[in-house]
Amino acid sequence: MENVTQDTRGSVLHGTAVVPGIRYAKAVWIKPRPKLPQAGAQVDEAQRDAEYERFVAAADTVAERLSSRGERAVGAASEVLNATAGLVRDRGWRKAVKKNTAAGHPADYAVVAATTKFISMFEAAGGIMAERVTDLRDIRDRTIAEIRGEDEPGLPEVDGEVVLFADDLSPADTAALDTTQFTALVTELGGPTSHTAIIARQLNVPCIVAVGAEVNKIPAGEMVLVDGSEGSIEIGADPEDAERQVSESKALAEKVALWRGPAQTSDGHRVQLLANVQDGKAAATAAETEAEGIGLFRTEMCFLSATSEPSVEEQAKVYTKVLEAFPDSKVVVRSLDAGSDKPVAFATLADEMNPALGVRGLRIARANEGLLIRQLDAIAKAAEDLGRGEDSPTWVMAPMVATAREAKWFAGLCAERGLTAGAMIEVPAAALMADKIMPHLDFVSIGTNDLTQYAMAADRMSPQLAYLTDPWQPAVLRLIKMTCEQGRKTDTPVGVCGEAAADPLLACVLTGLGVNSLSAASTALAAVGAQLAEVDLATCVRAAEAALDAEGAIAAREAVREIIPLPQA
Amino acid sequence: MENVTQDTRGSVLHGTAVVPGIRYAKAVWIKPRPKLPQAGAQVDEAQRDAEYERFVAAADTVAERLSSRGERAVGAASEVLNATAGLVRDRGWRKAVKKNTAAGHPADYAVVAATTKFISMFEAAGGIMAERVTDLRDIRDRTIAEIRGEDEPGLPEVDGEVVLFADDLSPADTAALDTTQFTALVTELGGPTSHTAIIARQLNVPCIVAVGAEVNKIPAGEMVLVDGSEGSIEIGADPEDAERQVSESKALAEKVALWRGPAQTSDGHRVQLLANVQDGKAAATAAETEAEGIGLFRTEMCFLSATSEPSVEEQAKVYTKVLEAFPDSKVVVRSLDAGSDKPVAFATLADEMNPALGVRGLRIARANEGLLIRQLDAIAKAAEDLGRGEDSPTWVMAPMVATAREAKWFAGLCAERGLTAGAMIEVPAAALMADKIMPHLDFVSIGTNDLTQYAMAADRMSPQLAYLTDPWQPAVLRLIKMTCEQGRKTDTPVGVCGEAAADPLLACVLTGLGVNSLSAASTALAAVGAQLAEVDLATCVRAAEAALDAEGAIAAREAVREIIPLPQA
Repeated sequence: MENVTQDTRGSVLHGTAVVPGIRYAKAVWIKPRPKLPQAGAQVDEAQRDAEYERFVAAADTVAERLSSRGERAVGAASEVLNATAGLVRDRGWRKAVKKNTAAGHPADYAVVAATTKFISMFEAAGGIMAERVTDLRDIRDRTIAEIRGEDEPGLPEVDGEVVLFADDLSPADTAALDTTQFTALVTELGGPTSHTAIIARQLNVPCIVAVGAEVNKIPAGEMVLVDGSEGSIEIGADPEDAERQVSESKALAEKVALWRGPAQTSDGHRVQLLANVQDGKAAATAAETEAEGIGLFRTEMCFLSATSEPSVEEQAKVYTKVLEAFPDSKVVVRSLDAGSDKPVAFATLADEMNPALGVRGLRIARANEGLLIRQLDAIAKAAEDLGRGEDSPTWVMAPMVATAREAKWFAGLCAERGLTAGAMIEVPAAALMADKIMPHLDFVSIGTNDLTQYAMAADRMSPQLAYLTDPWQPAVLRLIKMTCEQGRKTDTPVGVCGEAAADPLLACVLTGLGVNSLSAASTALAAVGAQLAEVDLATCVRAAEAALDAEGAIAAREAVREIIPLPQA
Repeated sequence: MENVTQDTRGSVLHGTAVVPGIRYAKAVWIKPRPKLPQAGAQVDEAQRDAEYERFVAAADTVAERLSSRGERAVGAASEVLNATAGLVRDRGWRKAVKKNTAAGHPADYAVVAATTKFISMFEAAGGIMAERVTDLRDIRDRTIAEIRGEDEPGLPEVDGEVVLFADDLSPADTAALDTTQFTALVTELGGPTSHTAIIARQLNVPCIVAVGAEVNKIPAGEMVLVDGSEGSIEIGADPEDAERQVSESKALAEKVALWRGPAQTSDGHRVQLLANVQDGKAAATAAETEAEGIGLFRTEMCFLSATSEPSVEEQAKVYTKVLEAFPDSKVVVRSLDAGSDKPVAFATLADEMNPALGVRGLRIARANEGLLIRQLDAIAKAAEDLGRGEDSPTWVMAPMVATAREAKWFAGLCAERGLTAGAMIEVPAAALMADKIMPHLDFVSIGTNDLTQYAMAADRMSPQLAYLTDPWQPAVLRLIKMTCEQGRKTDTPVGVCGEAAADPLLACVLTGLGVNSLSAASTALAAVGAQLAEVDLATCVRAAEAALDAEGAIAAREAVREIIPLPQA
């Protein structure tokens, strides 16, 4: 019951705000998944070939439907749909189904058994493969429904604007979203870094996740007022008032679209807005926005598909592409953050019980210093070849630094190569020991996603724990405060890269705490800049104090919203 | 190289100190594991039965050897050896080997393949089952060696006192330890909560773990001076000086054995020493020591083998057995801490990516409040039936509290049943938010094992990360300081339960920080009490300040040892 409040207007549910924007429309529920068949039924020997053909026909239909949606979609959505269609056409999977039908299993059970086998294999492989498990379940369910002649699970066909409700969305579901028909997304599960959240941000559809089981009480067809800035869903809102809020929200969105950097508060306090990128393409896209540089270049994303370590020259080529996009600006390169949910074939330990608490980030280099040294050499080479200097600084930071000794060691390796050295502050100990760690470094960048995960001892990917993994948690803000205080004392720049930097309201709090730069997806920067332009620094400081003193994440956000109203359109 | 220092006497390696005591003896290395065979070789059809018989003979020999050691050993060691012998006799495993020999594989490879299959199954089952994987590898290696006629891997036969060196010890290895022959244990890997450490504590053998790869440079036969209080291993020590240190250490051990409670510093500052127990038997054992009560009753240990939730009456019976052991003293009962490495059949979520960051402890009750309510009812019933009152307080605390809201909710449920409510401080956020959490509670108890794991973002079970998961980390001590400061402000008792409370030197630091009670294995309490008796409170405060200001864990310990010398015999 903790996510429900009652007031005179009706009932309001609360979840985690992911993409801002207010919408008012009919609730539509995603079609439920089919009930899975149990083992037991046997098909006559004579019928088994026909049973397999029934499967093939159904699978082909599903594949074609996904492909044709893929053709209509663009960008990442299109890629996801085509990849899912490819899974349905996968020979290995179909062969496994055939083996099962040949053994006498009915087509639907044959699909379940074959998919279960693949799910085990994918899960055993871990990492990226394990993330495909949702896709496997998705094609299993679509195919079973088709075999049985049931409605395709997932998105229904609708006309008019609707708010889409679901437990959680599969990649195929979200990729098929037609933003002219779905104006907002609300899910029971998921977190700010879930697939639903990532796609919603990309499509710029107002989105709330982790509302909890209460959301299931909202009936299809009910008009709902969804506020993606506040994370609230209201039933029984006054229609006139609701429409007014929607217009204001859309006007604000236009204002955001027109915002131009560089970012500063209303009284001229500068905050550097930077982009998170993973490759040259993303860097080029970011260069077309108001981003003043790159605040986080995730180098591991270039390595995820490599089976052996790329040479210094190969690495330098990849890094050059990113550096080139910002020839006259700061670029912060993070050294290999392999491990945990980002396994790299030649670097990651297998079979860790808790990979998020395992040998990841800089810890991998402890047993394999050469890997880090070669990467630093490649970064230095790329920067040197491009003639980058004081006006286009190239900074390098290490992930998962936990102790002063680790910081010192990393900084030493950077100094030998003339590189400016920093560290991610994402392990709670690093914030707690900022006084001992920072003297070794030129800068730090707070990774709020992992910092929250560890400070709350809650997996950021766990849908059940999304109520804890919220960067508004005052415990996390207190760790950020410790870091900023030390930054001020030693004149060390403190940045934030992580979902927190993409939240316009939280950006004000971070500014009030003393954060100098914010790095986020480049599409999120304008909303942050537009919000910062509306407040002065003293208000940011007051907002930070209120958030630090709140009992929990929801209370912190509410306290700050009272101090800083939504920007007026 | 970070764990090696050179001085005039010779070279000194450092690891994590686990069991105190100084010993000087010859180094002996545990026999290496056999090289595993690869697939490929085929056995003639006619020879396959004989090949299986070769396996059976070898396995029987291994089983008998383990059983006969089991008969000679006592207590837990005997149980471990007999359980391992039982694994070698397991029909399922032997059947799997037979299938492989029947398919033409040589006996040794047949064992490897069969065991690999079982390892996968055990790992998939997770939790307690996954922990048996070390045992499986152990019987595989012993059997292969026997098949090949090689030396049995593991413990060599030795005469005279020796220091045992190994990478890490399997349960079967440690269970076979004859403490008249092995006077100290040193391992390359492992942590303060590893199996090696637990058994060493039980046998009271001086022990150092996590020394790192450098330890392999110590040749067998070399005389080594092992200091289990300092975590140091010295080669080339002066024999006379070494023998003197050993005598002093043994005299100190006798002094510890003679120590009688209640514990207090030399200037009379009382510190309550309590016992960690998991059942009535352990409570009865603790009652025979100087323990003033129970500081941590791990109720989940009573549930680990249950397939469905025990009734309130059944639970009350179990709790009564523990409470009875301390009829006139405080008993602190921890509510079900299921999940992570302690799966409970009817409560734990399966398939979490990072179970240590998952739905565990109090979080399970969030979705299943009835489970918690029935446990609280059972605790209240047990206390009431025994007529426990003010002189024999029964306190209840919740594990994994992360927010003020959780603390308030738990305290409310306790208040309804007249129970005194507290929380474990083991999530960093709970320490950071102590000012918001403590007002809801009557007491708190700091769980240093998990608090260290989360603050350092390092799995406490990871052998590679033992250098981080050390409760001497100043970051952890700073979180404890925050908790104690808030305890003083609100007059709330602050205890520590976890490995930190069992370390005599660290106990002084905790006392200096303001901790009121220390709870540990009852066998560890006398050493703590004897150390506390040697120092005054002001010295403890100075030691705490030195530790808080150190750069890292090793530096913190060294700084405190300079302030507080080893107690004199």
